[in-house]
Amino acid sequence: MWLEASRIMLQLRSLQKVRCGILTVEIEHVDADTLEKLEQRGVDCEPKASTIRIIQDKYSQKVHFSRHGIPLPEFMQIDDLESANRAGELFGYPLMIKSKRLAYDGRGNAVAKSPEVLSSAVTALGGYERGLYVEKWAPFIKELAVIVARGRDGSILCYPVVETIHKDNICHIVKAPADVPWKVRKLATEVAREAVSSLEGAGVFAVELFLTEDGQILLNEVAPRPHNSGHHTIESCYTSQFEQHLRAVVGLPLGDPSMKTPAAIMYNMLGEDEGERGFQLAHQLIRRALSIPGAAVHWYDKPEMRKQRKMGHITIIGPSMGIVEARLNAMLTEESLESQTAVQPRVGIIMGSDSDLPVMKEAAKILNMFNVPYEVRIVSAHRTPDVMFKYAKSASERGVQIIIAGAGGAAHLPGMIASLTPLPVIGVPVRASVMDGLDSLLSIVQMPRGVPVATVAVNNATNAGLLAVRMLGVADVDLQARMSQYQEGTRDEVVAKAEKLEQVGWESYSNS
Amino acid sequence: MWLEASRIMLQLRSLQKVRCGILTVEIEHVDADTLEKLEQRGVDCEPKASTIRIIQDKYSQKVHFSRHGIPLPEFMQIDDLESANRAGELFGYPLMIKSKRLAYDGRGNAVAKSPEVLSSAVTALGGYERGLYVEKWAPFIKELAVIVARGRDGSILCYPVVETIHKDNICHIVKAPADVPWKVRKLATEVAREAVSSLEGAGVFAVELFLTEDGQILLNEVAPRPHNSGHHTIESCYTSQFEQHLRAVVGLPLGDPSMKTPAAIMYNMLGEDEGERGFQLAHQLIRRALSIPGAAVHWYDKPEMRKQRKMGHITIIGPSMGIVEARLNAMLTEESLESQTAVQPRVGIIMGSDSDLPVMKEAAKILNMFNVPYEVRIVSAHRTPDVMFKYAKSASERGVQIIIAGAGGAAHLPGMIASLTPLPVIGVPVRASVMDGLDSLLSIVQMPRGVPVATVAVNNATNAGLLAVRMLGVADVDLQARMSQYQEGTRDEVVAKAEKLEQVGWESYSNS
Repeated sequence: MWLEASRIMLQLRSLQKVRCGILTVEIEHVDADTLEKLEQRGVDCEPKASTIRIIQDKYSQKVHFSRHGIPLPEFMQIDDLESANRAGELFGYPLMIKSKRLAYDGRGNAVAKSPEVLSSAVTALGGYERGLYVEKWAPFIKELAVIVARGRDGSILCYPVVETIHKDNICHIVKAPADVPWKVRKLATEVAREAVSSLEGAGVFAVELFLTEDGQILLNEVAPRPHNSGHHTIESCYTSQFEQHLRAVVGLPLGDPSMKTPAAIMYNMLGEDEGERGFQLAHQLIRRALSIPGAAVHWYDKPEMRKQRKMGHITIIGPSMGIVEARLNAMLTEESLESQTAVQPRVGIIMGSDSDLPVMKEAAKILNMFNVPYEVRIVSAHRTPDVMFKYAKSASERGVQIIIAGAGGAAHLPGMIASLTPLPVIGVPVRASVMDGLDSLLSIVQMPRGVPVATVAVNNATNAGLLAVRMLGVADVDLQARMSQYQEGTRDEVVAKAEKLEQVGWESYSNS
Repeated sequence: MWLEASRIMLQLRSLQKVRCGILTVEIEHVDADTLEKLEQRGVDCEPKASTIRIIQDKYSQKVHFSRHGIPLPEFMQIDDLESANRAGELFGYPLMIKSKRLAYDGRGNAVAKSPEVLSSAVTALGGYERGLYVEKWAPFIKELAVIVARGRDGSILCYPVVETIHKDNICHIVKAPADVPWKVRKLATEVAREAVSSLEGAGVFAVELFLTEDGQILLNEVAPRPHNSGHHTIESCYTSQFEQHLRAVVGLPLGDPSMKTPAAIMYNMLGEDEGERGFQLAHQLIRRALSIPGAAVHWYDKPEMRKQRKMGHITIIGPSMGIVEARLNAMLTEESLESQTAVQPRVGIIMGSDSDLPVMKEAAKILNMFNVPYEVRIVSAHRTPDVMFKYAKSASERGVQIIIAGAGGAAHLPGMIASLTPLPVIGVPVRASVMDGLDSLLSIVQMPRGVPVATVAVNNATNAGLLAVRMLGVADVDLQARMSQYQEGTRDEVVAKAEKLEQVGWESYSNS
């Protein structure tokens, strides 16, 4: 700690020499007294020393946020066994015991499952004299985090809400964006913004949150700096959290925090073993990562390898969370990448019965032509409603981006699928035995307000395939260029026929 | 040059000390003899000294590629006025005169517009003794470039074809991907791949190409290293050209070269004036760039500012070329960003007549709800076919990503638009005076094979808006999450109604 402070003093002297007066911190465990002295001498600390002081003591952090009306788990200070027992009676068990200071990556936290083990848990943390408090157990279903940037002018921008997945209390995986309903994302962003608004100074702040079963968002803690939960932003966002922090403290306009790729997963490389063996395992992982499309390896080059130590991280980005997850799995297993990701379908072609296949296969032919991966399934709205339900609900998370559904007669499949998924659904009316397919067409196209089905002509699965390619082309300039080329090709075909007709005359043409 | 060579020797000694034997170059203007000597002593140069030797002499480069069957403009060496005049007679004027060595950024190039100025052009280049050759004027319509990576195992991956726009012979703007037909992109990629295949060694190569009016691709020149035309890859591709070069020369698997964002523009910051005034202008530009979403500033921190000197570059990325171009314009003009980009519509809502507006406005309401920018236009297939043609053809390059077209009766608008654009087109059959809209529906949905229209129910523009949001959600997880939320919302509405019905009974319900 004192070493830190003297480092700051040294930096300060050189700062004053070069006439630069902004000081920021890369970790909150610095001496707040020194920071305050520096502020008194006119050094511009961002964020403010007061913020560092509040945050480095987790108990005072809770008191601060609680006073500002930020929702968080109930908590109380404990000074001896008596107050600890009282807390246990009040909050129930399991009971979370935490040290006020220098707690991170699971260090400084202990769980007492019953009153009997309270004392031993306290001892494990270093005793009451270290400064302890307890927290009511938050029955969360997910841990979320939001990186919030505040400029010197007070402007605030929030990064997308991410899900953090911990293993042995250490952040293991971060998924961006979090797979939670929109209203949860909105609520999490609001809580994070409120929390940061209550603190002084510019910079990037990481707000860690709990999502409870009943959809509540509770604050866990705030870090006043770029954070592990924001490392994915280097590759996935328009502005990385590190550039954002510099922009914020220096007084430049804040950069766009939104994602430039649809999905990202950050995987922490934690030491799996001590010493050489640990390095070997890490290098094996890096070697696999180098073959994964969209994976970026960050190796911190720490001299010593220890179990559970953060040695680096790997960020994988891609066009959908399903695809990114498949890439992560390929990286973490010995299986070849091909077997894991090559088959990742982007379009699902489904039909009510195998009798629809002669019509529906034309959609598959188009997707083949454009190299778009797809899957073909028989899913009947009336005969296998369970399968249909499951298919529609899981499609998006499996990486499917568009569903083409064909059906005939009382053709319910496309509309039912559309009501069960947020993905665009293309409906192909298949001509059944009567009415030349008009029954199928009207069953598919005349959907009620709220649930659209993109309907194509009767039996025209070719156009369904082409429509899917056009939809994917919205975000894929290559596909769009190839669609233009296809249109030019069909035009050339017609032109050739027209020329032939002119050359040979209509009589020979009809006979040829 | 010799300084370079001695630097290489120095580096080599330290390389041998640390038992690392790979040498690469950041610029081809190094002493090839020294490189060859190093190779003979066992140093692994990537790319090979032979490649550097071929490339650093532009004439021998042309001879090399010509021998390997790569298409390129005709050329010949000139040693005196006589051979220069002969070349002029053979190739015609204007005639491109180039020095064989140390030519880049327009230096070492001169154009003789007629035989009379041949001598003065040669003198301007330093005379025949410097080593000159002439090239037949290539009447190109665009300059393209392809970054090609070759691994140590010979594997080759190509980055997307870009368009390079030069100003006074210096690269000014790079657009990725190039706005050229798919078959041109394919051809350019093939020529680039062939050119690099003819050279020895691993690394990243930049292949500069001409696109002629008749769709031919001619090789201009190759640089055996990361290149200005590939700077955009830092922000826009899964693997930047710099990482790719390291992967290639070191023998790691090559990374995915494809774009992670749909569009990018790289803008070179060329010195606009000498000294302090030049710095001031550059800083004004940087300040504006910092407020542009998706813009990344790279300032090279060169100590001296000179007119036309490359002082840095700015890369702007975004969801479509239209949007990125609007951002570039906002950066280069004094106008506020809002006036330039806030109105950039992603969806075009068009209709044949203002009588369709009461129906079609429901699509706009949905897009409002989801914060999707759109435009509303009256475009009639039968009364303003020219306007329709122009609208459809320009939509994509203006940044429009989806078109919603409404029409009634003999409803031709959606189908005609779909035949003129590669964008997805959503058709809304508007109920006209007869047949309850069945005429409109069939006119829109029964499209021939090859031209799909995503048709929704009669008069149901709400569903057209929702379908557009679902399509945009394919590459925008936020929109997709909000669509799920919307679906949940409509479900809750129905549930509430059902509960009310149960509570009050059907008789009171009907009256309420």
